[in-house]
Amino acid sequence: MLVLRKPYLLYLGDAQLKSDCKTAFGLRDWCREDVLGEWSHPAASVTLEVPRLAPAAAAAQGAGSIIVGVAPTGGVLPARWQDDLEAALEAGLDVVSGLHTRLTSFPRLVRAAERRGVRLVDVRHLNPSFPVASGRKRTGLRVLTVGTDCALGKKYTALALTRALAARGAPATFRATGQTGLMIAGSGIAMDALVADFLAGAAEALSPDNAPDHWDVIEGQGSIFHPAYAGVTVGLLHGSQPDAIVLCHDPARLTIEEYPNYPIPPLGEVIADYLRLGRLTNRAIRCVGLSINSSALADAAWAEYRTGLERELGLPACDPMRGGVGALADRLLAP
Amino acid sequence: MLVLRKPYLLYLGDAQLKSDCKTAFGLRDWCREDVLGEWSHPAASVTLEVPRLAPAAAAAQGAGSIIVGVAPTGGVLPARWQDDLEAALEAGLDVVSGLHTRLTSFPRLVRAAERRGVRLVDVRHLNPSFPVASGRKRTGLRVLTVGTDCALGKKYTALALTRALAARGAPATFRATGQTGLMIAGSGIAMDALVADFLAGAAEALSPDNAPDHWDVIEGQGSIFHPAYAGVTVGLLHGSQPDAIVLCHDPARLTIEEYPNYPIPPLGEVIADYLRLGRLTNRAIRCVGLSINSSALADAAWAEYRTGLERELGLPACDPMRGGVGALADRLLAP
Repeated sequence: MLVLRKPYLLYLGDAQLKSDCKTAFGLRDWCREDVLGEWSHPAASVTLEVPRLAPAAAAAQGAGSIIVGVAPTGGVLPARWQDDLEAALEAGLDVVSGLHTRLTSFPRLVRAAERRGVRLVDVRHLNPSFPVASGRKRTGLRVLTVGTDCALGKKYTALALTRALAARGAPATFRATGQTGLMIAGSGIAMDALVADFLAGAAEALSPDNAPDHWDVIEGQGSIFHPAYAGVTVGLLHGSQPDAIVLCHDPARLTIEEYPNYPIPPLGEVIADYLRLGRLTNRAIRCVGLSINSSALADAAWAEYRTGLERELGLPACDPMRGGVGALADRLLAP
Repeated sequence: MLVLRKPYLLYLGDAQLKSDCKTAFGLRDWCREDVLGEWSHPAASVTLEVPRLAPAAAAAQGAGSIIVGVAPTGGVLPARWQDDLEAALEAGLDVVSGLHTRLTSFPRLVRAAERRGVRLVDVRHLNPSFPVASGRKRTGLRVLTVGTDCALGKKYTALALTRALAARGAPATFRATGQTGLMIAGSGIAMDALVADFLAGAAEALSPDNAPDHWDVIEGQGSIFHPAYAGVTVGLLHGSQPDAIVLCHDPARLTIEEYPNYPIPPLGEVIADYLRLGRLTNRAIRCVGLSINSSALADAAWAEYRTGLERELGLPACDPMRGGVGALADRLLAP
């Protein structure tokens, strides 16, 4: 499993739009304690409102890595950014990127990294090898966030749930399965880049044996109802062997995004189907509740939707952005 | 396109289990005319019952390639097999492998191949990149062989069914999804080596739009009940969009092989679970029958088992090695 060197310096290039810097904002919001500061090209107008630090100054304060926290248009890394990243390498920092363009495709960065004995980490292109899944039951407790679709809050929910468990004194670890989650956690496995035969094996490696009362809170991927990605979802589900799942959903999403012929089934069916598949590797799997992205609903509509859902399914429904996920943590910890 | 040099010498390593030698048995049975003989490490107990030939003797008889016909768990090539493969290279044979471990990762094999001007062919690593699945319904008809476990006849069944359809005048094409099928068919996609996000997309590409009455007979992979490989199975199922499935089973197999804590469910449940998953991309999916590996049963026991199964499930049960799969082809073609 990849382990990143913390703390981080976040690099914003010459970003003009906050929306191009989702990675940097995500890191600031979810691992603020691991962020020493930000650095950017002079032309940048976006700021994270954290201390501005040149790479050498960040290194002097103990930084381990500079994270490319901005996505350039077209995914190509401009030459002027390479000056900044080379300076970071010279200062002794690893450079970490989730861009399509590989850092290792720039000879000057490769040379600088070799010269200084530091790493170029292309999170999107990692292809580590894992054993085939054993199916062996592991010690410790696991909860996996699953979804009706992609991109509707599985990472956010897992991060919020990890905090809610910790706030209740329960030992809990967030387990990252995607690029941004991996940067936040500092370690993890990008499931979608794995060779297919090792999906479940990698998921097993991600949440190893642990103390009996320890919760691994595993970031879900994709959906079993997604015509392209269900294989990844199933491999992660089986390898995770979750004791519990939380179903993430956006009520404004009536079909799989960009697949208008693929309707999202009723949530009761969704939960039953996830539990049926999950039982293969954990007979005791249960659903502890729903995490709803309610941003499309005004307060009264959300209250009504939530009440109806809770009555229909007999499970708590939360929005991590609107009241938090305390009810899900309580349900996980209930005897 | 890659053209393999025939005829073949089949290599069995030090196999103790026939089920580890699917590749070798498949080639023996489906292109016997291309097989000169077998070779193995002295510790092997499995034999194909073809002439035993050392690589030099096979080369003297005109062999073009030695095929690694055995799959160790996890796909790793043991160092002791390298002695035999190096001898084959020295004798002038290409070495062809479908294992995850690349032949080209062994410096001594690379050196020997270069020295002799012969090839190391990693069949599993020849895949082009594929788009993400579209979920769009394609023209033409498709049948997928699915299984209660790995290594119990999905490829055999698909090959036999292709022949049975052709014998009935129905246009049919075998679609290979594993390395052996690929070696037999001359084209195909090794599904288990794909990057996970592209599983269903590759399966879509494997059986493109076709004439309305044309059958693609798609070789299944893994099992939805396998704790390591279900993700591959689901991706292939969704991308194939099969109109029909044939369930492959070995009644002597009570649990997933090498996973004694994973019992195989009753076959009625197995079929229902496959159909439930398959409905995502083809609402009209149906099961047309069972393909049974009955090698553990004497004639009377097989007749009794078969009759009971057909009565219980209301579907024809065949053994491709014992009477053929004509009943399955008839069911596929029934109006």
